[in-house]
Amino acid sequence: MRADARRNRQRLLDAALQVYAERGADDASLDEIARRAGVGIGTLYRHFPTRQALLEAVYRDQVEELCATARELAGQTPPGQALERWLRALMAFATTKKNLSTALMSGPDKSEVAMSCSTMVREAAAGLLAEAQRTGQVRGDVDVVDLLRMSHALAIAADMPHSHPDQGERLMSVLLDGLRPQPPGQS
Amino acid sequence: MRADARRNRQRLLDAALQVYAERGADDASLDEIARRAGVGIGTLYRHFPTRQALLEAVYRDQVEELCATARELAGQTPPGQALERWLRALMAFATTKKNLSTALMSGPDKSEVAMSCSTMVREAAAGLLAEAQRTGQVRGDVDVVDLLRMSHALAIAADMPHSHPDQGERLMSVLLDGLRPQPPGQS
Repeated sequence: MRADARRNRQRLLDAALQVYAERGADDASLDEIARRAGVGIGTLYRHFPTRQALLEAVYRDQVEELCATARELAGQTPPGQALERWLRALMAFATTKKNLSTALMSGPDKSEVAMSCSTMVREAAAGLLAEAQRTGQVRGDVDVVDLLRMSHALAIAADMPHSHPDQGERLMSVLLDGLRPQPPGQS
Repeated sequence: MRADARRNRQRLLDAALQVYAERGADDASLDEIARRAGVGIGTLYRHFPTRQALLEAVYRDQVEELCATARELAGQTPPGQALERWLRALMAFATTKKNLSTALMSGPDKSEVAMSCSTMVREAAAGLLAEAQRTGQVRGDVDVVDLLRMSHALAIAADMPHSHPDQGERLMSVLLDGLRPQPPGQS
């Protein structure tokens, strides 16, 4: 793909993500996405022949970004901090996913897209978690399933009516403290 | 209400809760509920003239039980332990509520029932939390909204596909540790 085509593609993905968040993925107008990306509707269709193709590409793009973040953070010390930052990114992703997933799951290739993405996220999480546990910064009795479920659940809880405006962050801070190795005899 | 009528009413509530959990509140058969409670269908209708009346009574009964548990636990020391036990009861209630709430929220009196119940739960939680914070067993920077959202989040997480069989309990143990006063300078 030529450099300007790549740029247009990425602009469309970014614009679509915004419009999905504002209007919901089902009601998003493709014209509006193209306009916001600063390209013609023909360019949109050249890159993404169907609504479903665009939706899946946005989802996959978000997953790839989350995995890239994990790789960048893995170079950092201390590993406990790397995991902490990544969990915040994961929670933000869980909110995005919620916006996309109803529409996403109605497509014909739902299981393929969802499965390959969930494997990528799980591997990214597992690497950061293992390093944080190896260096004693996170307790040993949690695993990658716990982390993924928890971040998903916090994103849902943060979205409930009558929550604090910073509800997700408040719960995340309790979770992060709970993930630290606990003093013996406290439980 | 005579003692045997009260007993029948409670049996119907218990049977309905079971059947709702097994079949969903929308598909529950009133005949089956009466049969399981060991009473005739006429007795069911005398106590609960409509499906909605039964559903609301089951919900209210669960909330009252949760509040009674809070009062019993409030007498216990240490207050940290009282709060911990009550949070487990609250998580179980959140699961029940999920089974009931779609049907519950479609009734005409939804706001009245839901509001009076959510006030009761919030007050029960606030009392236990205040005491646990006053005695230094729970950190000061969480409030009753955090607790309620958290328990709801755990109930959601426990119900997601590919979770651990004891997912709710695993996450609860992390969060309970996170609720303890944290050593200074760790965050």
